[in-house]
Amino acid sequence: MASYASLTKEQLATEKANLQKQYNAFKELGVKLDMSRGKPSVEQIALSMEMLRCLTPEEILKAGNYGILDGIPAAKKFFANLLEVQPENIIVGGNSSLQLMYDTIARAMQFGIMGNQPWSKQEKVKFLCPVPGYDRHFAITELMNIEMVNIPMDENGPDMDQIEKLVNTDASVKGIWCVPKYSNPTGITYSDDVVRRFAALKPAAPDFRIFWDNAYVVHHLSDEHDELLNIFEECKKYNNQDMVYEFCSTSKITFPGAGVAAMAASESNIKWILKLMTVQIIGYDKLNQIRHCKYLKSQEFLTEHMKKHAASIKPKFDIVLDYLDREIAPLEIAHWTKPKGGYFVSFNTMNGCAKRVGELCKQAGVTLTGVGATFPYGIDVNDSNIRIAPTFPPVEELEQAMQLFCICVKLASVEKLMEE
Amino acid sequence: MASYASLTKEQLATEKANLQKQYNAFKELGVKLDMSRGKPSVEQIALSMEMLRCLTPEEILKAGNYGILDGIPAAKKFFANLLEVQPENIIVGGNSSLQLMYDTIARAMQFGIMGNQPWSKQEKVKFLCPVPGYDRHFAITELMNIEMVNIPMDENGPDMDQIEKLVNTDASVKGIWCVPKYSNPTGITYSDDVVRRFAALKPAAPDFRIFWDNAYVVHHLSDEHDELLNIFEECKKYNNQDMVYEFCSTSKITFPGAGVAAMAASESNIKWILKLMTVQIIGYDKLNQIRHCKYLKSQEFLTEHMKKHAASIKPKFDIVLDYLDREIAPLEIAHWTKPKGGYFVSFNTMNGCAKRVGELCKQAGVTLTGVGATFPYGIDVNDSNIRIAPTFPPVEELEQAMQLFCICVKLASVEKLMEE
Repeated sequence: MASYASLTKEQLATEKANLQKQYNAFKELGVKLDMSRGKPSVEQIALSMEMLRCLTPEEILKAGNYGILDGIPAAKKFFANLLEVQPENIIVGGNSSLQLMYDTIARAMQFGIMGNQPWSKQEKVKFLCPVPGYDRHFAITELMNIEMVNIPMDENGPDMDQIEKLVNTDASVKGIWCVPKYSNPTGITYSDDVVRRFAALKPAAPDFRIFWDNAYVVHHLSDEHDELLNIFEECKKYNNQDMVYEFCSTSKITFPGAGVAAMAASESNIKWILKLMTVQIIGYDKLNQIRHCKYLKSQEFLTEHMKKHAASIKPKFDIVLDYLDREIAPLEIAHWTKPKGGYFVSFNTMNGCAKRVGELCKQAGVTLTGVGATFPYGIDVNDSNIRIAPTFPPVEELEQAMQLFCICVKLASVEKLMEE
Repeated sequence: MASYASLTKEQLATEKANLQKQYNAFKELGVKLDMSRGKPSVEQIALSMEMLRCLTPEEILKAGNYGILDGIPAAKKFFANLLEVQPENIIVGGNSSLQLMYDTIARAMQFGIMGNQPWSKQEKVKFLCPVPGYDRHFAITELMNIEMVNIPMDENGPDMDQIEKLVNTDASVKGIWCVPKYSNPTGITYSDDVVRRFAALKPAAPDFRIFWDNAYVVHHLSDEHDELLNIFEECKKYNNQDMVYEFCSTSKITFPGAGVAAMAASESNIKWILKLMTVQIIGYDKLNQIRHCKYLKSQEFLTEHMKKHAASIKPKFDIVLDYLDREIAPLEIAHWTKPKGGYFVSFNTMNGCAKRVGELCKQAGVTLTGVGATFPYGIDVNDSNIRIAPTFPPVEELEQAMQLFCICVKLASVEKLMEE
């Protein structure tokens, strides 16, 4: 099949009828698949089973009591290694990095950051949001009534010209959401130049913070890794160490929902946060911290462990990309990313087609991430971006889902072209 | 020895010299004991060891993924039974009921309760604080800049005349901190009449809430239990179901710091809370919930399990009370509670002596709960209340600590009497 753009009205009509037939046939299968979230599969969960039975009675007795707000030393060391910072830069949290992010912003709203006025007392607070991005980030800033400003992304990261202009001149810009490695959903990793320009920002607001959500720090798909510069090291060159909060978790290393989350920041930031956090909680679950440290015993073990995850995930990404290359590429109706890690493929339809693709998929039993969800306020002005999350379904179901997805993309595109 | 009040100046001087000698002798032992917090002992932690290895691979695989914001059905049922409410009235949290309380107040401050104006937008917000009470409650309201109003307690609970007057007439009174069963630190349980009067309140503020921290709901010291009326049942009689948030956790049932916390509230409250909470976290640690539900398999098992805790704790309470009865009672210089459950004995010195007792203990190596901590802002105007936490130290250490404690109480009292 040639590019859809080259087809005549009649050819398009024939193609549409043909696609409609395929779509109806699929619909009759009555499948029910959920591809809406970036979830590890059952196979991946099985990888860490041993962890849940690894604690000895002695270890439990030694550690089982209240206390240690910022995490046990072994856990602080583990995350310090992971994020290439010092243990004194780490706060170990509960099972959710999202909760650490929410709480960090909630504290900024209510109490301010390091002696600055609480954000809730300021006339306007803005966050920059590289797009497409992570819907749960945007949900936090939306709930807090923080105005979100879209920043376009390319294969090197967000548009740094715009970011520099806004951050360095507008004191109401208090933060930016970043997933710097294997970005959600585009899968790209910020280039060295982008990281350096972040580190060199001269924010108009003293309480401006980069929310550096390093969710996929060791989540490679193969031995061919992306490398991300250590932003803290770069920041030191500009005396900007206080400007970054980094987040991560083991949710996609061990157990989604039962992992351990952590944040990294300068010692001044950590001190300020702990002074407030100590009123909220005596300490997060230490037994889960010990379990994790014991099971993920070394950097070498972690590397091998993540290769097992990759072995489970990579074939699924290949299925997605093979389908798209085979079925969609020749038609020149969409473009997408080919990530080297993370949990998503970011797919862009012709403008004005994404919602229709989502509807068509849903009506035939396949739930995608809500179309628009990758943008603040759920508004993708181009109606183009769709986040494909291939990790959760078993291979056979994923094949089915991609078959349907391709039919729907084609159908929506033909419909669109026929309107014009 | 007779009542200190009956002694002459000379007799007091002799007693003081004698006590000073005993105190110095103790000091030379160089002991180092911490009785500052209500912590379970190592022996108690050992009771639940089996729980940490009870999950089967099937259970893990089935439940190990993201999701379920309000808790797994089995955990909701467990806490519903514990608090005598329905599962739909339960939100299961992380490892900390304190965190649930903090977050509940933080949300009220920032977003308001069920459509009412956020507390942070109101000119003044007050909380009533029955005293003596729990320092970590007071720390939350102090941090939030909520004005705390002391309410005296007796053996039936807080002074309901004062509470009714304040709650029913002053719309800036938004909450009250209660530990209704085996109260921290007095150990008393609110009488039926007190609970009924709580339920019948007619708050001036529509967003007034009772923070009912039922931390010691099944934490009896022997078969002779206190009984607490179900406040939700009573509230229904006055159409006041929305007025109560109840909290609890398994921290002192299974593992301090690695238990499961929960809150109970009316369905309208739960709905409002979940709508906000879903932005903060995808779900709390479900594997820990499953572990708990599987291990604490029935109400009968729980009852037997708590008897084992009691068997470990009761002898420690007996040591404390025996020392006080033997060493202090005849001197008529203090009074204290004899609780049937919970984690504390509340001890009251002669006015103006508590701080001095704390200092003397500390200098000789025994750390008590910070004197004053049982009052808002750390201010015990009578300088009288001391919280004794007997559960954590082994019996021999507790004996030592009580020996010192009695010497210090006597010494501080003699010093005080000689001033007069």
